Amino acid sequence: MNYAERMNTVRGSVIRDVASEIASRNNKELIQLSGGLPQGSLFPIKELKDVTDLILSDEDKAIESLQYGLTKGDTELLGILSERLQKVEKMDIDMSNILITTGCQQGISLVSTALLDLHDTVIIEKPSYLDGLNATLPYECNIVGVDTDEEGIVIRSLERALDELHKVKLIYVIPNFQNPTGKAWTLDRRLEFLELLGQEKYDHIHILEDNPYGEIRFRGEFIPSLKSLDKNNKVIYLGSFSKIMCPGLRVGYVVGEKSFVDRLEEIKEGADLQSNQFAQSQIREYLKKYDIDRHVQEIRDVYKVKADVMISAIKQELGDVVNYVVPDGGIFMWMEVPEYINTSAMLSDALDANVSYIPGASFFADGSGTNTLRLNFSMSSEDQIKEGIKRLAGVIKSKIS
Amino acid sequence: MNYAERMNTVRGSVIRDVASEIASRNNKELIQLSGGLPQGSLFPIKELKDVTDLILSDEDKAIESLQYGLTKGDTELLGILSERLQKVEKMDIDMSNILITTGCQQGISLVSTALLDLHDTVIIEKPSYLDGLNATLPYECNIVGVDTDEEGIVIRSLERALDELHKVKLIYVIPNFQNPTGKAWTLDRRLEFLELLGQEKYDHIHILEDNPYGEIRFRGEFIPSLKSLDKNNKVIYLGSFSKIMCPGLRVGYVVGEKSFVDRLEEIKEGADLQSNQFAQSQIREYLKKYDIDRHVQEIRDVYKVKADVMISAIKQELGDVVNYVVPDGGIFMWMEVPEYINTSAMLSDALDANVSYIPGASFFADGSGTNTLRLNFSMSSEDQIKEGIKRLAGVIKSKIS
Repeated sequence: MNYAERMNTVRGSVIRDVASEIASRNNKELIQLSGGLPQGSLFPIKELKDVTDLILSDEDKAIESLQYGLTKGDTELLGILSERLQKVEKMDIDMSNILITTGCQQGISLVSTALLDLHDTVIIEKPSYLDGLNATLPYECNIVGVDTDEEGIVIRSLERALDELHKVKLIYVIPNFQNPTGKAWTLDRRLEFLELLGQEKYDHIHILEDNPYGEIRFRGEFIPSLKSLDKNNKVIYLGSFSKIMCPGLRVGYVVGEKSFVDRLEEIKEGADLQSNQFAQSQIREYLKKYDIDRHVQEIRDVYKVKADVMISAIKQELGDVVNYVVPDGGIFMWMEVPEYINTSAMLSDALDANVSYIPGASFFADGSGTNTLRLNFSMSSEDQIKEGIKRLAGVIKSKIS
Repeated sequence: MNYAERMNTVRGSVIRDVASEIASRNNKELIQLSGGLPQGSLFPIKELKDVTDLILSDEDKAIESLQYGLTKGDTELLGILSERLQKVEKMDIDMSNILITTGCQQGISLVSTALLDLHDTVIIEKPSYLDGLNATLPYECNIVGVDTDEEGIVIRSLERALDELHKVKLIYVIPNFQNPTGKAWTLDRRLEFLELLGQEKYDHIHILEDNPYGEIRFRGEFIPSLKSLDKNNKVIYLGSFSKIMCPGLRVGYVVGEKSFVDRLEEIKEGADLQSNQFAQSQIREYLKKYDIDRHVQEIRDVYKVKADVMISAIKQELGDVVNYVVPDGGIFMWMEVPEYINTSAMLSDALDANVSYIPGASFFADGSGTNTLRLNFSMSSEDQIKEGIKRLAGVIKSKIS
């Protein structure tokens, strides 16, 4: 094939490669702590069956949900969603500020198309969900990680990066229960971040806030999103039903200035014309008939127990030899093993010991973080988590000299 | 916003603009001959309700269909689809040659990302579905139309274009019941086309065959797709369930060489991670339980009658003053009015007369075709078609001096 030059830059997802490797082993004994999957048995299957029946039993509703619809998204869903974002996220928006996307991932892709010129720089947290940034690769930009600490991105490091780096156009951040670390930024750090970026000299820089895990807070107080705190209209916000309902329906959304959202809609027409209309109808009818807030609370309760089981197991099995982050929400935990252990190299041993994780280096744009790893606690049962950490501990301890 | 330079090139769909204009008028009396929508009452609603119930009543199936899945697509669906393409389209492929996409539109987008460098040239038929080519705009390429006649693209014109134009990388064609003209290429023309492009000097050029309407042949004999006739692996093929089942589920697919499809999968990971898993399950279970070929035959029978009603009405009302194409399949008809009538300017008069169409100029890359228009016969009833053409005839005749 006569590929475009950009294809020298485009590459597949590291996380999906690990998933393929696992699938190819077809090992029923394996405990997967590598995934990013929500717990399937929490999906509101009964309720989705009810609303799906409702849609398909009414000929008008059925036809509408199976027919072409608007690129922007189902009008009634947009209305319900904007009310929910006003209520839950305290956003000062209306439906003209929202575009329905095929998951948050498409949001990253559309925003990249709209903003990134060749060799522009995108700043991300160090570490961050680099795989998601594969959406920027067709635009051959430069991705640079900036240090983070327990409170969020380090403002002094960010300021230095902004001054030193060439052509910074976008800052991509996940302030709530980040993928991969599970950390949430403090309110103060959010305000400092917005204050820094609010300076006139940074007018040309936009912020992309990815918030798929925000509602899964199972400890501590709610902290407002950057979008809701932003007074300068610099923040573009990505949300999704993947973690609070189910990911298979692929319904996410972008929130931004109306004129910007209108331009994203033009790009989306070329990208996929529109997202699945039936899934939008399912979610719309679910939101009308059922209490999603109660459902989210159920998810929080279950994930809190699982997170605590994982934390206890790590403390017990590996407390002396690793550092780890205690998450207040989300689905991930982060671990640092002794510096001389390479977690990419260690993965095959872990798979042989019937446990999987994601090597941390895949979250560092500069290839560092070779002694880190990401663990998931949403997908496995409590017993599996205990046993999985025990197996992982065995592998790690065998590497300790 | 600090947009990327490419956004000077990106624009929205002209057809969707007409749709928005119509929606804003909110006129119940309007007969829409402008759309490209299949007839909703033909959607297999009862069957989809049955298989959807089946999926959501089985916990394992439900969770699988609501969970994340593979970027490439549902494995069982890929298998069934490859068998169907072998049978119906006589393609020599297996499932490794297929990638599930969010409609044909995403296929155009992914292929554009994979192949088009800045200022590359894309050749299309004149006229063609230019709106779909909006997917190429982020790559700021040059779109050039090549003459067509009753048998397809004109080979001599194509050869001249290939020799004269700079950096031709891709030829995008719709050989079956084209959008907008409804024409199908003859077998001879397909073979001549492939023979020309099979020359070594054109090794760097790829063919993108878009075939959403191919199965809706209601007259004449089946003609093989370019993909199935291609001996040089130059053809990338796009198919979809939108016109043979329903468009709201947004399930399409790309067929190509395995190594190429693998690279498209990498791009798709960045673009939207994967298409809706639930819709893939719905289509998979439908294909397993029901006879889609019988369903397609039903669509053909209904559309044939509608096409014939439209042809008769045009003949009767406008036979002396316009030229038109008699289609053997698909959902569109094409009309040429006297040269001095501008169909873009005439549209507001038509809307005032409660009938809509798509001005033909939007299908010509060079802005010509100002005296042409596209009509759709799948969406309206027979009575609406008769009445719509009568109204349109009134408007056209009022312009004839």
